[in-house]
Amino acid sequence: MAGGPSKRGLGLLVLGVWMMSPFTGAQEQRPLNLMPVPSSVQIGAGRLLVDSSFSVGLTGYTEPRLDRAAERFLRQLSRQTAIPLATKPGASAKPVLLIHTDHASKEIQELGEDESYVLEVSATGAKLSAPTPLGAMHGLQTFLQLVNVSPDGFASPAVTIHDKPRFPWRGLMIDSARHFVPLDVLRRNIDGLEAVKMNVFHWHLSENQGFRVESKKFPKLHEMGSDGLYYTQDEIHDLIEYARDRGIRVVPEFDVPGHSTAWFVGYPELASGPGPYEIERKWGVFDPAFDPTNERTYKFLDQFIGEMAKLFPDHFFHVGGDEVNGKQWDANPKIQEFIKEHSLKNNEGLQSYFNKRLEPIVSKHGKSMVGWDEVLDPSLPKDILIQSWRGPDALAAAAKQGFRGILSNGYYLDLGWAAARHYAVDPLSGAAANLSPEEKARILGGESCMWAEYINPENIDSRVWPRNAVIAERLWSPEETKDAASMHARMEILSTRLEWLGLTHKTYHHQMLQRIAGPSTPEEFAALTTLASAVEPVKDYTREETATAEPTSATPLNRLVDAIPLESATARHFGESVDKFISASCQDAATDARLRAQLTAWRDNDRDLRSLARRSYLVKEVSATSGDLSTLGAIGLAALDFIAKKQRAPDDWKAQQLAVLEQVQKPKGQLLLMPAPAVQKLVEAAAAGGACSSPN
Amino acid sequence: MAGGPSKRGLGLLVLGVWMMSPFTGAQEQRPLNLMPVPSSVQIGAGRLLVDSSFSVGLTGYTEPRLDRAAERFLRQLSRQTAIPLATKPGASAKPVLLIHTDHASKEIQELGEDESYVLEVSATGAKLSAPTPLGAMHGLQTFLQLVNVSPDGFASPAVTIHDKPRFPWRGLMIDSARHFVPLDVLRRNIDGLEAVKMNVFHWHLSENQGFRVESKKFPKLHEMGSDGLYYTQDEIHDLIEYARDRGIRVVPEFDVPGHSTAWFVGYPELASGPGPYEIERKWGVFDPAFDPTNERTYKFLDQFIGEMAKLFPDHFFHVGGDEVNGKQWDANPKIQEFIKEHSLKNNEGLQSYFNKRLEPIVSKHGKSMVGWDEVLDPSLPKDILIQSWRGPDALAAAAKQGFRGILSNGYYLDLGWAAARHYAVDPLSGAAANLSPEEKARILGGESCMWAEYINPENIDSRVWPRNAVIAERLWSPEETKDAASMHARMEILSTRLEWLGLTHKTYHHQMLQRIAGPSTPEEFAALTTLASAVEPVKDYTREETATAEPTSATPLNRLVDAIPLESATARHFGESVDKFISASCQDAATDARLRAQLTAWRDNDRDLRSLARRSYLVKEVSATSGDLSTLGAIGLAALDFIAKKQRAPDDWKAQQLAVLEQVQKPKGQLLLMPAPAVQKLVEAAAAGGACSSPN
Repeated sequence: MAGGPSKRGLGLLVLGVWMMSPFTGAQEQRPLNLMPVPSSVQIGAGRLLVDSSFSVGLTGYTEPRLDRAAERFLRQLSRQTAIPLATKPGASAKPVLLIHTDHASKEIQELGEDESYVLEVSATGAKLSAPTPLGAMHGLQTFLQLVNVSPDGFASPAVTIHDKPRFPWRGLMIDSARHFVPLDVLRRNIDGLEAVKMNVFHWHLSENQGFRVESKKFPKLHEMGSDGLYYTQDEIHDLIEYARDRGIRVVPEFDVPGHSTAWFVGYPELASGPGPYEIERKWGVFDPAFDPTNERTYKFLDQFIGEMAKLFPDHFFHVGGDEVNGKQWDANPKIQEFIKEHSLKNNEGLQSYFNKRLEPIVSKHGKSMVGWDEVLDPSLPKDILIQSWRGPDALAAAAKQGFRGILSNGYYLDLGWAAARHYAVDPLSGAAANLSPEEKARILGGESCMWAEYINPENIDSRVWPRNAVIAERLWSPEETKDAASMHARMEILSTRLEWLGLTHKTYHHQMLQRIAGPSTPEEFAALTTLASAVEPVKDYTREETATAEPTSATPLNRLVDAIPLESATARHFGESVDKFISASCQDAATDARLRAQLTAWRDNDRDLRSLARRSYLVKEVSATSGDLSTLGAIGLAALDFIAKKQRAPDDWKAQQLAVLEQVQKPKGQLLLMPAPAVQKLVEAAAAGGACSSPN
Repeated sequence: MAGGPSKRGLGLLVLGVWMMSPFTGAQEQRPLNLMPVPSSVQIGAGRLLVDSSFSVGLTGYTEPRLDRAAERFLRQLSRQTAIPLATKPGASAKPVLLIHTDHASKEIQELGEDESYVLEVSATGAKLSAPTPLGAMHGLQTFLQLVNVSPDGFASPAVTIHDKPRFPWRGLMIDSARHFVPLDVLRRNIDGLEAVKMNVFHWHLSENQGFRVESKKFPKLHEMGSDGLYYTQDEIHDLIEYARDRGIRVVPEFDVPGHSTAWFVGYPELASGPGPYEIERKWGVFDPAFDPTNERTYKFLDQFIGEMAKLFPDHFFHVGGDEVNGKQWDANPKIQEFIKEHSLKNNEGLQSYFNKRLEPIVSKHGKSMVGWDEVLDPSLPKDILIQSWRGPDALAAAAKQGFRGILSNGYYLDLGWAAARHYAVDPLSGAAANLSPEEKARILGGESCMWAEYINPENIDSRVWPRNAVIAERLWSPEETKDAASMHARMEILSTRLEWLGLTHKTYHHQMLQRIAGPSTPEEFAALTTLASAVEPVKDYTREETATAEPTSATPLNRLVDAIPLESATARHFGESVDKFISASCQDAATDARLRAQLTAWRDNDRDLRSLARRSYLVKEVSATSGDLSTLGAIGLAALDFIAKKQRAPDDWKAQQLAVLEQVQKPKGQLLLMPAPAVQKLVEAAAAGGACSSPN
């Protein structure tokens, strides 16, 4: 049953077909709905029932972590089926699921270890085989995704899966510095990483707005730089163990020489400008930076990194290095003199100098240095790793110079991109596609990034999930796994599954809307929900630009823009229906009816929202957008009426509607009205008349 | 501002009027929506804004518990508004909310301590005054309920509240024995108790199905009697502290001499029949009982109660005493001989003998004994307390004999009664209404009871909340607080508030439905949701009777009957609309339209559910009920059609529909189709013709 190329092709074909039409209604032939898609899948006959007699056994190499993984698996299986299961892997001679592991993985998890597994499920039992515990843990997650309700009970289809990751570095970065992220929130997100087979948690721990780690050597870092919101070393140790138990490495980031105001609250003497310093409350790029000309800086960093290198066992150590605006350096005559004396040309040269001093320190403490694009300097040792926020071309250039890299450009979760847009980003695209195999091998994978200006424990999960699963699939699954329709169907199913882990990406939404509405009638609340489902927050970095008051870390995140998912499923589905309608020459009566129902609901929605807007300032803020949604509904219905009457809509009508639609598409209350482009297509179709196929 | 009778009357009047029409749309005049309703409320002018400058100060008597209560209050206020607040009560000279406490409460909280408070909120600040920390904590909960979103920001209306409880014993019993309830679930429910001002958590800790407390004296109790699911003494200690911090006493119950199989797994020698014993897996009343004729029993209980009396500081100690079926006693000749020798007449006499031996043991360890009705014996000291599952008449009889009592009959949350039915039960009703003031004073309050045959961590919150809040109001608020419409409106608002405490009574539902459906289209899932919203589980003790297989503690609680709330808000609202329609002589066009929309949705719902039923055995199980719902929709629409045409529906049509409705109302899949009686009213109205006022 080895996964040769031909079988692998077949497996993907089966998955592809099935996953594009997940609701066939056929009783036996259901899609597998796995995310990430495995390398190779072969469907067997029948299914394996999961009932209270389900049991797990471990053979081959064993270790306590495997026992815990099996227990966690059984707990999770019990949770998703509500079938009480004994949660200790049993001593049964013939367990239902037998896990065979060949040998240990590294004591400290390393980049590039074998994570492969083979999972064979038949109607009578299942076997999971893996070279290492890492592969076994991945296979257990696949099994959990296979189990669903069936006509006879909970069951997994019979299937043989050969699976291994495409890239060895598949990570999520969480910024715990701009807003502090409590440990329970991190833990449930790490559970999410395990579910989608990511293997790196990159922990962004220091910023202008906060220093989040207890330092015993330099206690003023956390005492003065964190508002009391920091992780103790014991807590960090426990979190690392928690992640290791799930096959996940923890890479810490301490950003230097910029993004460092919080360090200087306690240690102003390290900065390039005169103190005193306060914790920064605003967002943006700020002036304070370490003084690269001062030997005290390197002594301090040596001791500090020494302490942290012991606390964080991973081989990689992230030093940030991004976005130094150089203003403090410009303003300091001693520093400018130093630049001249050492022929460093400019501030960039000075930062290169800093990195060349820093790298041996990191290296001396047994670590490989990781930094954002800016740290790249041809004279640095090839052992360093570049994390690219600039893009695949920058990454390709680094690879050509012999540097390893990971991609984060295109994977910034906070920018509010649609899942499909993240999905289309490939670390080996652009200039990277043309690299030699040897150079390509230096591109190790990627990391999604959750920057924390606008998150808190309430809404962070919804900013990470489910879109992060799509990036996880890009980094795990075969390169040719690209179908967006399949991805959307599977993402929605996975999104529901992730709730069993305690992630709140779906449930938080309702509560936040309740807060915005206050006590309300069912009709009023439904109106708010309808509006919320049709809008998205403004994208990229426009939130600061469109703010009426400068946002700070004390700004309440209780507005509609904070409460809605970053991608509107309703708008996506509506857009798909419009495309379907137009491509069927506007002759599809069922789709016509569905579009009319939706447009009517939008047209009439503002009426019920107005009473709420009188009572709640948080609803009042979105009144204009609510009015726009009504307008959108009316325009769409008018367009459908022209089409139904087979009348060509007059040009002046079209011009008028397009002018209105342009207004409607301008962000208000930092919200975007997402169905507007699809309504515009209807207007254009109505004005085109005839076979109504023009705008597509 | 003291709450004299006239002001109190006024306050209640204001509340009554406001709360009956909570959505007036008026900008300033909003109802307070407090639950439980305070003794006296006077509305002031304006409102107090809550923003990030909000602060709390403590004066008068202070203690760490008050600091923690203030911190918890600030955290909760921050959670419900999402406004970042400093969570330490500050040293501000002029805090926004000043809390003045006169003196300490008892070190170990006692029955009948002063729990009153006065809360004065003006546009410029707020003052909370209370004799003891208990009152201060209640006042903080009231303040949290006052704060809502307003046109200008989050705010509390200006108001003066004088408040105190009607009864001193206001409790919730949770059965942690039949199904183990994890500590985090208990903690969030205790948070709920604090929110509704209940002050007793009665912890049912032993049963045939499990012994849940670590005993150091008799370790085989928890080691052999719990499947490893028990609370350690440290955990219990922490939970008691947690409850004390919230003004809540913890009363443990160890049920003897019956309900005790789990004790005998480790200590069979204490039983009245020969062993060995196994943990019971089924539900019901079982034979095993302590041997009251064996001196070892009393030695054992003396040592055991001695250990537990130290672990649980409360003055009351519950010994159960209910439902001894006597079969082991009948079957044991030595015991029968003992009955004869001691002239005990029968098994009841033997249980009386047991209680008379037990009471001095409990008393010796410094406790007052609590037991269910069966323990009542005139010769026992008046210090004992009767918890009545039989009813107010039994309680009145006990009070006449000089015994104190609390009511639980009518407050069994597991029986699935509507909130309004619990609300109508008063501890001083029935025979108790005619007691002398002195006798009445012996009726100390009541306890809702959550028996655990059909609960697990997933659905327990939904079985307790929000209905428990209604019982809490009955026990706290003035006797004349009785309006069901006001109660329903406020209960729904409170239910949303309780989610901020982490209670899952609303969110669990969606996840459980997702499990039942499996991967599904939005239309399919909506159909399941519609069906779920129209049904309730069978009531009282009919679930065992209607089960197709005997339920046990290993039965998965994953069916629709487990996933739905115990009261259908949809059916209640539909019934209210039908009543409104008929009482308006069927002339109300808006209500007619609303009824038609609902009935049409029901009629058409089964279509979308059928594809799900083919894929999921959990949906298939409710197919018949889904068909019935369609039938119900069609019948209701037909009735409305007759009414609209002003035709009198023929008698044979009526007879036919009533026959169908009778079938439809029979439980299927352990579900009741709740809108059926309201549809029957429509049928009768259609058949009555004319002014259509007959059935009401």
